[in-house]
Amino acid sequence: MGDVSFIAVDWGTTSFRLWALEADGTITAASDGPFGMANLKRSDFGSVLEDSIAKIGHGADVPVVICGMAGAAQGWCEAPYLQTPTPLHALGKGAVTVRGSTRDVRILPGVKQMSPANVMRGEETQIAGLLHHHPDFSGTVCLPGTHTKWVRVADQSIIDFETCMTGEQFAFFSKTSVLSHSMIVDGWSDTAFADAVAAALDDPTSVPRLLFAIRAEMLIGEQSGAEARARLSGLLIGQELVATRPFWDRGNVTLIGASKLCELYLHAFDQLGIAGQALDSEAMTVAGLVSAYQIQKETFHA
Amino acid sequence: MGDVSFIAVDWGTTSFRLWALEADGTITAASDGPFGMANLKRSDFGSVLEDSIAKIGHGADVPVVICGMAGAAQGWCEAPYLQTPTPLHALGKGAVTVRGSTRDVRILPGVKQMSPANVMRGEETQIAGLLHHHPDFSGTVCLPGTHTKWVRVADQSIIDFETCMTGEQFAFFSKTSVLSHSMIVDGWSDTAFADAVAAALDDPTSVPRLLFAIRAEMLIGEQSGAEARARLSGLLIGQELVATRPFWDRGNVTLIGASKLCELYLHAFDQLGIAGQALDSEAMTVAGLVSAYQIQKETFHA
Repeated sequence: MGDVSFIAVDWGTTSFRLWALEADGTITAASDGPFGMANLKRSDFGSVLEDSIAKIGHGADVPVVICGMAGAAQGWCEAPYLQTPTPLHALGKGAVTVRGSTRDVRILPGVKQMSPANVMRGEETQIAGLLHHHPDFSGTVCLPGTHTKWVRVADQSIIDFETCMTGEQFAFFSKTSVLSHSMIVDGWSDTAFADAVAAALDDPTSVPRLLFAIRAEMLIGEQSGAEARARLSGLLIGQELVATRPFWDRGNVTLIGASKLCELYLHAFDQLGIAGQALDSEAMTVAGLVSAYQIQKETFHA
Repeated sequence: MGDVSFIAVDWGTTSFRLWALEADGTITAASDGPFGMANLKRSDFGSVLEDSIAKIGHGADVPVVICGMAGAAQGWCEAPYLQTPTPLHALGKGAVTVRGSTRDVRILPGVKQMSPANVMRGEETQIAGLLHHHPDFSGTVCLPGTHTKWVRVADQSIIDFETCMTGEQFAFFSKTSVLSHSMIVDGWSDTAFADAVAAALDDPTSVPRLLFAIRAEMLIGEQSGAEARARLSGLLIGQELVATRPFWDRGNVTLIGASKLCELYLHAFDQLGIAGQALDSEAMTVAGLVSAYQIQKETFHA
């Protein structure tokens, strides 16, 4: 416990994850909870952080590096966006120190792209983590999730990126919309997924009418709930792939995300002849925070 | 009050509207309330209907004709779908009489299309209303709403149709999704709407990424909330128009819907050189119920 150099935090819209780390990046303790930005007042952030650190038993002298929505305008303390093209080593330098904290707490900035307008907070740290492990990486990174990011990386920098709200749309269609009546029970069909991806790739303009057809097939056809859920996912991911073609048309994509979701993207990539490899998002987040800490280590006060 | 021939009811998923009518279709009283199918148990339908009729002061001898979701499998009493191509005069004949009611209560069927699978409940009655007023009508009808229908009508029949979930998606994106933070206040911009329709028509595959751009433009650009809302609407309607091209490419569409929504579609039609005319959905619903009643009048018992 005496070897802990700093605390790393991934502070998102709905989730909070914390790790105690040695200088070389070894994790010695971890904690998480539903303390996302959306559930907190600005004045709550400090005590949530201190309570979580106390729970894993570390004192007031350990510095903290945070990434994610805690740095948004409506978060704890705004860490202004860096603009593309963004060298990843600039994340640590662009960090904002939280005033009024006895502990040295720094929040990493997000990244913005002026035209076409786009923003990210959190994903840039995962990409810094990828470069921490593979300093010579160059190519396209896809980070599937609530708001899936497609990012071109070269020269240790984020060159440009796009966002599709595929995860948020899947949650809406499957849990809230009229389609939710067709997928009350969990379940999956690889065939239905592949067919739907193919349909969206073949004619992406048909997706708006194929969505309601999922409901109609349930009412008058033979479709199962598992097929309905897989079909919805395939239509949305297929539609996203068509929208982001310039990012993958060189044929190789590195995925950073939850393993089950990455698997779906890998299946869709197969249909397009894209080579893909998946990396764990939590590991990349921690590596990115370690990288930001190490670059700025001399400047932290304990 | 003595001249009332029957009660017409439009019983939807979230709403309930009732009219007392003379034999020629003249409305003598009306009532409505939030008694949609989604808020009711099956055993509630009868008392909701009787309470509403009592409120406008009519006795147990007046027959009732209902259209909409009350006839769905999860509604009051299932009125099985008629299959396309569907002669509109068949709606009255296909009506199902509610058992156990002292009053003669009939629910009109919806319409299903086997391939591609599709269903409607309520819109078929509005189209019957259009034919009641214009018996020789032939062409495409668009009924914008939660689930927008595009319907080809010929020979007094529904030939085929498509559905886009445009209204439900607009509600999700503007009220629940991350985009909702960009449109907290109501407001509108005709220019932003027209630009977004044009962008979706020009490259429909870009819509999945242009949606999140609405949020990004708000965070780092100059876009107003009014522009954000109009842009969302334009992207979704533009995307729907591309998906339904075979329905409007002959250049003339009759709209049945809420007047403000129809106006938006008419603006988008202008951009495509489509001639359009809008009819009020409530008037068409009543006319359709009158038509179904008149065709079957001799069979009703009072």
